[in-house]
Amino acid sequence: MGKAILFDMENLFIIKIGGNLLDEPDGLSLFLERFSAIREKKILVHGGGKIATRIGQRMGIAEKYQAGRRVTDEPTLELVTMVYGGLVNKKLVARLQSLGCNALGLTGADGGLIPARKRPVRDQDFGFAGDVDYSALRADACQSLIRIGLVPVFAPLTFDPDAGGMLNTNGDTIASALAMALSAFYSVRLIFCFDRPGVLERMEDSASVIHDLDRARFEELKSGGALHSGILPKLTAAFEAIGHGVSQVWMGEPDQLEDHLNSGPGGTLIHP
Amino acid sequence: MGKAILFDMENLFIIKIGGNLLDEPDGLSLFLERFSAIREKKILVHGGGKIATRIGQRMGIAEKYQAGRRVTDEPTLELVTMVYGGLVNKKLVARLQSLGCNALGLTGADGGLIPARKRPVRDQDFGFAGDVDYSALRADACQSLIRIGLVPVFAPLTFDPDAGGMLNTNGDTIASALAMALSAFYSVRLIFCFDRPGVLERMEDSASVIHDLDRARFEELKSGGALHSGILPKLTAAFEAIGHGVSQVWMGEPDQLEDHLNSGPGGTLIHP
Repeated sequence: MGKAILFDMENLFIIKIGGNLLDEPDGLSLFLERFSAIREKKILVHGGGKIATRIGQRMGIAEKYQAGRRVTDEPTLELVTMVYGGLVNKKLVARLQSLGCNALGLTGADGGLIPARKRPVRDQDFGFAGDVDYSALRADACQSLIRIGLVPVFAPLTFDPDAGGMLNTNGDTIASALAMALSAFYSVRLIFCFDRPGVLERMEDSASVIHDLDRARFEELKSGGALHSGILPKLTAAFEAIGHGVSQVWMGEPDQLEDHLNSGPGGTLIHP
Repeated sequence: MGKAILFDMENLFIIKIGGNLLDEPDGLSLFLERFSAIREKKILVHGGGKIATRIGQRMGIAEKYQAGRRVTDEPTLELVTMVYGGLVNKKLVARLQSLGCNALGLTGADGGLIPARKRPVRDQDFGFAGDVDYSALRADACQSLIRIGLVPVFAPLTFDPDAGGMLNTNGDTIASALAMALSAFYSVRLIFCFDRPGVLERMEDSASVIHDLDRARFEELKSGGALHSGILPKLTAAFEAIGHGVSQVWMGEPDQLEDHLNSGPGGTLIHP
């Protein structure tokens, strides 16, 4: 009989906050205080869509869509690199620093952490949109940053190592990819913080929270068209994560975060 | 008699590139290749003024001046946070990564590396301009990043740890402050790369390079009004550095960089 080496892996919280939350000063302040207060290892991933839209309008950069999905043409890539990687990311970092949280702002290009591939053109051309393969993530380099006491704060941007350019990538996807890759080193708890108290059974009824959601139920809801827009990519990312070594995936409002971290009820737990 | 522990400190190159260089694709490509090829420890500091001006114009953000110096009002602070910390910084990082250089983009807020103080309002109010005291720099945290194999790439931004906001700071000042602070750990060689072959005795004569410049001569040139605009803050930063433990300070064009690193002539060496 061989030797069994048993050990508990350290917890790592990976928390994604959505674009709507960034637009709401009170909610954001509350969230940043709660996030700073988490004593365990942690990573923040942010979105930022609405701010990019507003600044794009001022610069005369029109939004382009194909089949209902935003296309990242070259002006849009410059816009999101500025807004996500600069404005949103650095404002969050400076505020977290002032709250005593040793935040370090990152995109996927920094330290080569999240290489991606420009989405291949098939029926549609989504432009500079980056597809991430979590197994290509430099999880070891990310762990090195955490080990020296830093709290990574990721903007929703990746990069193309061959072309040497940035790529636009969904923040939920980045959070999920980080969670899967870092599960090699940590017991990862992935949290999606947004402006609803969990996944809702009936879009307009905030009391209809589904507290426990497994894949079968998810497929059922999806085919029934009951899921509100924006939640679908989040849930796809969530189920991918829970199927690839991530210890726990939870969704809810910033208000509920503290209670959830203390094992309280509320919000939606994802089950395989 | 006490014990004398003698050792050679490792070299660290801190290279500042100016805004003009960022606007010139060929010169920038050449520079990035040369920078990537440096095998020793290194840091890049960049400016970016012209790009911010262009994007500010598109967004309807007017430049404000007081006594000939740019004032960083709130819209300008947002602009430079986006452009310096996002667009310019991440583009450089992605390109360096594709050249095999493990670049990590930073502002002074990231990791709390460069705390600064909002310039006090006396006769003039320069707005969100940050004054840096190099002794407050988190040189140890910066060294930790270098130790884990990263190449820091700094945007010309610092932060106010009390207010939790970003501050606009001259890139030459940041390069010089980093050089002074990191002289505790490394033998620092500070390099200002710009679009002239060194400090010129006669502004319009690129053959009039002063190869060796000491403080006495600098004061002489300054009082004689012979120094072209833009070089004055650079030289002030350079002489501060050479007076505070920095091993060598050099100024010249990207073309001359390789030759200089191989102890060749050319450019301007700063002497105490």
